Amino acid sequence: MENWDIIIIGAGSAGLAAGIYAIRSGLKTLILDEKLAGGNISDAPNVENYPGFTKISGHELSEKMISQCKKLGVTIHELETVNKLQLDGETKTVTTHNTTYLTKTVLLATGSHHKTLEVKGEKALQGRGVSYCGICDGPFFKGKNVVVIGGGNSACITSLYLSDIAKQVTIIHRRNAFKAEHKLSLDVTSKSNVDVLWNTEIEEIKGDKQVKTVALKNNVTGVKTEFVVDAVFVQVGETPNSAVAKVSGVETDEVGYIKINLKQETNLSGVYAAGDVTTHPIKQVGTAVGQGITAALQAHSYIRRHLQK
Amino acid sequence: MENWDIIIIGAGSAGLAAGIYAIRSGLKTLILDEKLAGGNISDAPNVENYPGFTKISGHELSEKMISQCKKLGVTIHELETVNKLQLDGETKTVTTHNTTYLTKTVLLATGSHHKTLEVKGEKALQGRGVSYCGICDGPFFKGKNVVVIGGGNSACITSLYLSDIAKQVTIIHRRNAFKAEHKLSLDVTSKSNVDVLWNTEIEEIKGDKQVKTVALKNNVTGVKTEFVVDAVFVQVGETPNSAVAKVSGVETDEVGYIKINLKQETNLSGVYAAGDVTTHPIKQVGTAVGQGITAALQAHSYIRRHLQK
Repeated sequence: MENWDIIIIGAGSAGLAAGIYAIRSGLKTLILDEKLAGGNISDAPNVENYPGFTKISGHELSEKMISQCKKLGVTIHELETVNKLQLDGETKTVTTHNTTYLTKTVLLATGSHHKTLEVKGEKALQGRGVSYCGICDGPFFKGKNVVVIGGGNSACITSLYLSDIAKQVTIIHRRNAFKAEHKLSLDVTSKSNVDVLWNTEIEEIKGDKQVKTVALKNNVTGVKTEFVVDAVFVQVGETPNSAVAKVSGVETDEVGYIKINLKQETNLSGVYAAGDVTTHPIKQVGTAVGQGITAALQAHSYIRRHLQK
Repeated sequence: MENWDIIIIGAGSAGLAAGIYAIRSGLKTLILDEKLAGGNISDAPNVENYPGFTKISGHELSEKMISQCKKLGVTIHELETVNKLQLDGETKTVTTHNTTYLTKTVLLATGSHHKTLEVKGEKALQGRGVSYCGICDGPFFKGKNVVVIGGGNSACITSLYLSDIAKQVTIIHRRNAFKAEHKLSLDVTSKSNVDVLWNTEIEEIKGDKQVKTVALKNNVTGVKTEFVVDAVFVQVGETPNSAVAKVSGVETDEVGYIKINLKQETNLSGVYAAGDVTTHPIKQVGTAVGQGITAALQAHSYIRRHLQK
């Protein structure tokens, strides 16, 4: 079986940043990803908030990080799914659909995936007005009319964020009250340029090059309407990709986010987590990068202190 | 008096990253720096570990972040020293040598400065052969013999840089191994014109108009020697720039690093800290950036929840 110093699960921004630092620290470093390397940011048409680049496509940014890793000698296995982890003791095992690896440390950088609406037009117009991230894409709709779908904390936070940028924000929520915390709900409804359409479901997103309208249905009265918009921000939840970690004893919060501290340590010795899969409050490329760097250097220091004697 | 939503003290990587996110969140954003904008990284000849750039000079990287801030509308005041902070209550004041500002939130991103050796001759010969910045002063010693004091990352980075300029670089380190990352240690020891004196301490720097010799002592054998040199580059660590914050009630650890949590909150409501001045375990551009982003978004959310009613 192959022996590694660190196996990083997930080749998104957190995992790639960790790869750069792990290999530079002299660790034999493997990154595994069940998809292609790059992570969620690869799908972002434009990134204007990663410090160092005024404007870059998400794809180009992730390609730069991938190439930086590879030049330094990081091994990246794409399309290799991790099915099982054994995280106790000094030597841990990572079992994929392909083989089993031995490793001294594990970094969980598996990210999260957004929940989708599953309505007509949603997939086709993604990146052309349909977005799952207000902070990422909101600034493209300065002075425009946008809708936010959802009624939880993230829908309210996104609406508040967008209300400072967009001309008008309309929240479309299928229930008659927010699920979000009270204070957030109050904040949202007190904004002069935020309206809420209660008991309303979205049936279709229409447009060609860009989103043009959304087809709505009031689920109490049954009345159908069509609503003209420039962008649709879908905020019906994120799901952390932590299932395999959780069954292996890694502690998560009630939603499934992996609990970490300032050192990116989990509850298990030699096991770290970084990026969108963690309880860190901010889910951005720049914060994922910072967490990945921290985790890699902590893993290096753990190996030096505990395993090399 | 001018009113701001956020005043960021320090225009290094943490402060500039925060500026980008604060202004994009709609906050009226001022960054103050007692020096020129850019922070410590501006002095690094080469940065090879910031994700997104395989190799870039520290100066160029910081220029990119400064320009990104300015394009978005962040106001940056250089050469403006903060003397006093009043951090209680909803409206805080920031007093500089110039004026007093009102602000809703404060982000402390004041970084750290180099430690001195505290040996005889060091102060008297500063600027006359004693230097704390390789990129700033290295070029004055082309073809000369220089020593670098220290054994961490910055000592190794400085030695590598100087090895391309000086005739001979001698690293003087009080321990028998580098604390620097493995890759940097290897790079340094593979250079034909770089030597290391292990277990060696510097007792005095001698010279009149210019540095002439350093008095050394081997701390294992006790043997004392005098070593002829043209310049001494001191790279022995950093001290956090937290004095003004500390007297204003911001909690620090025993060294002076500002205590933070995962949200970059300090002990004071509406006051955040990010980057090298904090207790975060890692001091890197990428981790400073992540912390700056988090702090800015938390400040935005604090203003929205607590101050806009």
